[in-house]
Amino acid sequence: MSAKPTPPTHLPDPQNVRDVLAYWIRLRRVEKEWSQERLALECELDRTYVSAVERSRWNVSLSNIERIAQALGVEPWTLLRPPEPEPKSRKRKAPAQA
Amino acid sequence: MSAKPTPPTHLPDPQNVRDVLAYWIRLRRVEKEWSQERLALECELDRTYVSAVERSRWNVSLSNIERIAQALGVEPWTLLRPPEPEPKSRKRKAPAQA
Repeated sequence: MSAKPTPPTHLPDPQNVRDVLAYWIRLRRVEKEWSQERLALECELDRTYVSAVERSRWNVSLSNIERIAQALGVEPWTLLRPPEPEPKSRKRKAPAQA
Repeated sequence: MSAKPTPPTHLPDPQNVRDVLAYWIRLRRVEKEWSQERLALECELDRTYVSAVERSRWNVSLSNIERIAQALGVEPWTLLRPPEPEPKSRKRKAPAQA
């Protein structure tokens, strides 16, 4: 039934904590090649809940952030930290090319 | 009415996210010399709620973590990251002494 897991297509708004959380959960889940069903099973939450969280629809509680983090094998705080911007926006000189 | 704000007396259990959150909220609040009433006012939450959070009694929601972080002027993820251990527990050779 499940489609192949696909990573987030864009970076989250760093000011929007729900979006940041949704981004990391989806990214870490896809890195494990888990479906939402699988993640839901691993953290004993409902599949529709996991789906809602990944769509920034839910005001997740700390204990559920913890459960999801544990299932994904990461520390809870890493799921709230905005990701680094794309390389193109880093202030870094491009190497000279011939 | 309020007693002078006092900082946390010990480091939180780094495995316990509620304790980590409670530690940082209290520390950051005391750095601002704010009472719990003042913090509650700043983030439009109840004083008893702030008090419960600082005693690790509450399963805080993401939106309230965000409100508290905003009032304290810090990023939400910094309130969930376990603090560095005390210098004495760092793995570092003590200088030779006579």
